[in-house]
Amino acid sequence: MFKFVTAALAALLALPIALAAHAEEGMWTYDDFPSTQVEQTLGVRVDRAWLDHIQAASVRLTTGCSAAVVSPDGLALSNHHCVMPCAHDLSGPGTDYVRDGFLTDARAEERKCPGMQAEVLMGITDVTAQVFAASAGKFGEDYVVAREAAMSGAERALCGGDPRLRCQVISFFRGGQFKVYKYHKYSDVRLVFAPEFAASFFGGDPDNFNFPRFAFDCAFLRLYEDGKPARTQDFLTWGSGPPQDGEAVFVSGNPGASERQFTVAQLESLRDVNLPIAALQRSELRGRLIQFAEQSPENRRISTDQLFGQENAFKVFYGRQLALVDPDFMAARRKDEAELKAKLAADPKLAAQIGDPWGEIEKLQKAYAEQYVVWRQLEGAAGGGSELYRYARTLVRGALERPKPTTQRLPEFADSRLPLVEKTLFDQAAVEPGLETLYLEFWLSKTREYLGADSPATVMVLGKESPEGLARRLVAGSKLADPAVRRALWAGGLPAIAASTDPMIQFVLRTDPVSRAARQLWEEEVAGPIDRASERIARVRFAFYGPNIYPDATFSLRLSYGKVAGWTYKGEQIAPFTTFAGLYDRATGAEPFRLSPRWEAARGKLDPAVVFNFATTNDILGGNSGSPVVDARGQIIGDAFDGNIHSIAGDFVYDGALNRTVALTTDAITEALTKVYGRGALVKELTGR
Amino acid sequence: MFKFVTAALAALLALPIALAAHAEEGMWTYDDFPSTQVEQTLGVRVDRAWLDHIQAASVRLTTGCSAAVVSPDGLALSNHHCVMPCAHDLSGPGTDYVRDGFLTDARAEERKCPGMQAEVLMGITDVTAQVFAASAGKFGEDYVVAREAAMSGAERALCGGDPRLRCQVISFFRGGQFKVYKYHKYSDVRLVFAPEFAASFFGGDPDNFNFPRFAFDCAFLRLYEDGKPARTQDFLTWGSGPPQDGEAVFVSGNPGASERQFTVAQLESLRDVNLPIAALQRSELRGRLIQFAEQSPENRRISTDQLFGQENAFKVFYGRQLALVDPDFMAARRKDEAELKAKLAADPKLAAQIGDPWGEIEKLQKAYAEQYVVWRQLEGAAGGGSELYRYARTLVRGALERPKPTTQRLPEFADSRLPLVEKTLFDQAAVEPGLETLYLEFWLSKTREYLGADSPATVMVLGKESPEGLARRLVAGSKLADPAVRRALWAGGLPAIAASTDPMIQFVLRTDPVSRAARQLWEEEVAGPIDRASERIARVRFAFYGPNIYPDATFSLRLSYGKVAGWTYKGEQIAPFTTFAGLYDRATGAEPFRLSPRWEAARGKLDPAVVFNFATTNDILGGNSGSPVVDARGQIIGDAFDGNIHSIAGDFVYDGALNRTVALTTDAITEALTKVYGRGALVKELTGR
Repeated sequence: MFKFVTAALAALLALPIALAAHAEEGMWTYDDFPSTQVEQTLGVRVDRAWLDHIQAASVRLTTGCSAAVVSPDGLALSNHHCVMPCAHDLSGPGTDYVRDGFLTDARAEERKCPGMQAEVLMGITDVTAQVFAASAGKFGEDYVVAREAAMSGAERALCGGDPRLRCQVISFFRGGQFKVYKYHKYSDVRLVFAPEFAASFFGGDPDNFNFPRFAFDCAFLRLYEDGKPARTQDFLTWGSGPPQDGEAVFVSGNPGASERQFTVAQLESLRDVNLPIAALQRSELRGRLIQFAEQSPENRRISTDQLFGQENAFKVFYGRQLALVDPDFMAARRKDEAELKAKLAADPKLAAQIGDPWGEIEKLQKAYAEQYVVWRQLEGAAGGGSELYRYARTLVRGALERPKPTTQRLPEFADSRLPLVEKTLFDQAAVEPGLETLYLEFWLSKTREYLGADSPATVMVLGKESPEGLARRLVAGSKLADPAVRRALWAGGLPAIAASTDPMIQFVLRTDPVSRAARQLWEEEVAGPIDRASERIARVRFAFYGPNIYPDATFSLRLSYGKVAGWTYKGEQIAPFTTFAGLYDRATGAEPFRLSPRWEAARGKLDPAVVFNFATTNDILGGNSGSPVVDARGQIIGDAFDGNIHSIAGDFVYDGALNRTVALTTDAITEALTKVYGRGALVKELTGR
Repeated sequence: MFKFVTAALAALLALPIALAAHAEEGMWTYDDFPSTQVEQTLGVRVDRAWLDHIQAASVRLTTGCSAAVVSPDGLALSNHHCVMPCAHDLSGPGTDYVRDGFLTDARAEERKCPGMQAEVLMGITDVTAQVFAASAGKFGEDYVVAREAAMSGAERALCGGDPRLRCQVISFFRGGQFKVYKYHKYSDVRLVFAPEFAASFFGGDPDNFNFPRFAFDCAFLRLYEDGKPARTQDFLTWGSGPPQDGEAVFVSGNPGASERQFTVAQLESLRDVNLPIAALQRSELRGRLIQFAEQSPENRRISTDQLFGQENAFKVFYGRQLALVDPDFMAARRKDEAELKAKLAADPKLAAQIGDPWGEIEKLQKAYAEQYVVWRQLEGAAGGGSELYRYARTLVRGALERPKPTTQRLPEFADSRLPLVEKTLFDQAAVEPGLETLYLEFWLSKTREYLGADSPATVMVLGKESPEGLARRLVAGSKLADPAVRRALWAGGLPAIAASTDPMIQFVLRTDPVSRAARQLWEEEVAGPIDRASERIARVRFAFYGPNIYPDATFSLRLSYGKVAGWTYKGEQIAPFTTFAGLYDRATGAEPFRLSPRWEAARGKLDPAVVFNFATTNDILGGNSGSPVVDARGQIIGDAFDGNIHSIAGDFVYDGALNRTVALTTDAITEALTKVYGRGALVKELTGR
């Protein structure tokens, strides 16, 4: 969700790709932060107390973003694009908080975001040894069950049954390390302030992943506990004054997933199998959504956040694809891999223990290529984004899984994970029949297209119906949009599910065996064996590169260090700052460069010199959206919301000369809250003035 | 337009790719047909008289298809999907000849297809020496002009000003040979019979490129001259009786374009630059069209043939992409190339003349990657499919070019080409404002996306307007849908164009300089230099492989030999025949497997044993749609309309074990014309009975 940002897509074709690690590369864990290296690089020292403070004010949003606590009363700053689904859920025909913004005047007006949970990291415990011990010598299903048992055991041991806590085992270094992250959780998160879409996403898809940028992509949430604003002792002091060119800055947040430790064979499968299929499908879905939105104002209202998400993802994955077709990039990865293998070969004892995991992974890519699209259509992307389908699957699988011992269940239904499953299932969220039909029809038609009209799986899914007819029938007949209906089916368990006449429940009951079969095959023949080989590569890495390497991103809290900086590309220098004056210069009056009425009215009132957006060298990724940009004193000075176009392949590579994080200044937020939105109370809570 | 055909797209991922030439490979020119080889392979002898007869009955349709003359009164058989645009053009609100079919009872009811010209090849003249002589020692613009002058001179010399003739210089072997093809042209082609879409495209996109297949993809046209049915002495005798397994068959038609002689570097650019961008854009456009069609029955009517075209192309190009990511396929191409280079190196005298064209082409790929998308958005795919844009561009460029000497013009406006330009411009065709807006908006938004919102080209194209607003304004205000308006602007030349207040004319006038600049850069720095290097590779090929090789397809008449045959894939034998019985078995009642009312009514009347569709080993391609399948006696026994899934990468490779042509039997046509459609007169004209 680190909503990335547009240079021309064409420019991507000729993008230079970083070939060597850079001093400011890294998404570091808080328990292994390279403070010495930071001091050498940036000349500033951060100590344990500083780290603890930033950690305690850093928030993970389970909906895929990050945030920062910025007041003692649970106020949290995130990005607008992170709360857009919430603003949509709170809207309805005639009320459009996405288009118009959501502005509260008093705490009583703050409204709960469906399905959103905030989590603050309290501590980290290494459980690698016990996970390895439990699964040692086991294979296939046995291996999976044993590992699950060890992990859920560790989670239980550290969190007990405390409903305010969440413990989660997170795997690092692609299975090389396992740690329990213990979180203070807030399952009641309310929307406080969201600007209008025209301001938060000024420049739209064309400016997304571009810089200079002029986006007011911020939003405020409040964490609640027991129905009251949470007392949050650790919060970040609200910064004022412009960021300085060259100033040391830190970004604390939750990068989602990276593949910097993938083998070459895995990168090739991403390039040739996974990304092209996903991109082609996403592109068609994008076209359907655009045309859907143009049908009526109401269609536009219900699809704005969906289209944003699809277009953002399209650009991200397209950028990744272009990195993977760059021969220099792949050659560099081949070289890295050959070096690591050579080191291993020179150590016969370790080599004997490790074997040839690279070769194993390479061989597994044949199964990957054969099974990826089957797994994707029937399991990974099943339902195509339909909420009703998602509810039905949770209900059907929940009913089938919950009676089993926790370690024998599908992992997402383990005891430690049920609270969030239930919250997501029971919260009232918007379900839009028009969109539901679109998504289901799209998924059904792509399943038939990619698996074949006569494949047993397609016949099982479609029967003699058409994708269009089946989608309409399921959406028209389902009652699962009603949380009370979902709650009753969850409580009733398998008997209630079996007796349900809801067509979506019946559809999922009928098709679940095909979905599970695809998943099982994938896990047993592709994902599982790759995981086990990757673990061994991680061991090789530790052996030769020591502990001073950072793990691939796993949507867990990381800290990145860097500095405020522009960059030079093809001889052109790009300054690290934009101002309010630049926004008014860029506005054309036509979408997506049209100012909202509020910002139009504020023309002349805002200080034109205030720094609006800025660029830093921090190494961040999707999931970092809403992360605080913190200065050396620990003050928040920015709200990270994007990267520049050169950061778009950040999943694979970081290039300090070009990759940039893009953030909104706290100064601009203060100025706009005051002069555009008149939110005096909010400004007072932030600044004390 | 050889509308290719669905095995599962997933299956493509694991498709074996042919690595060696096969006996039945080849799209041979009529002046160099390997009769001896055919006799050795198939045991049948075809002599010059046989070849002359088939050639004289073979038709090229300028709209991208092939056909066969099947009566002395100008009756021609082609495919339904080749006349679908015509059926659409003849329809209107309330009349849908695509959905319902177009059935005439008498010649008076036959209706002219807008923009369609039929051409019958009369003779071939080699002009290679004079073209080479004219351009020898010249470079850049000089080279282009000199070559154009030689070619248009040759065309004039052979056809004079005879309005019934068309002479066209065609380049073979990627610039290794130039020949004038002299055609008898028929600019009045009328629609006689088109079945309903549910019958012609039974199975829809899911069955497209699949076999077994059950499609009635035929149509009849009639060539007219001086307002009367043309007297066509050479016509193919209508065959009866089922094709026999193993029987020798020939396909005579116009394969569009192949890249079998591309260098590895060119294939890599296709794979990494060209195909992905085209596929992603096509995929989004497909999504927009699907959603557009679902908005209303009228939208469905006006978009059916457009969506068909997009989905067909999507599948074809996706198949090509998958061939290009197959490491075995690319390794084989590398091996072929290395062998040819080694042969050249062993001949120092020739090597000194030739230089290193492969290396030159490889170096040029950098410019290709940088300029492809610019060229595509501003010139190659400009307008995005809008007819109004196309009209405006023809008018604006025609006005700018016609005053120049013919050899100095853009080649498409050379004197020898103007008659077809004018026919296309003046014929009355359907212009659908809803679709026009969709296409223009799509093109404008993709141009901004791929070139960047701030690029000078985008700024020139969009000004301060949005893609949505500009598209609406241009379509709402343009009067170019009226042929009289187009005719007046064409006649009025530059003064009329300059004075026009038509917004589309003004838009093209304003943007044409950017389009031309992109084209010029592309031709001078990419396409031209590649052509000149390819010529030298062609010379090397001739030198070492002799004349017994066939040239890449160029939408000119070719003859392919093969036999009726099924195939075996993954242990499964696929029979070469389907029957009417199979059609009724496959029908489910849901789209696209729903029988039309006529075919539903004919259930039980049709002979269930009649062979419906069949497969042959012939090597054909897009453009071959509508080609006659001819037996050794020269009778037409089938109407080629598709290939199987293994033929989908036919642009690059032919594999005799798996590649199959798919055709409709003349038997099935006779049976259905009689019992489903009651077209007694047509049957009598075909069979004499």
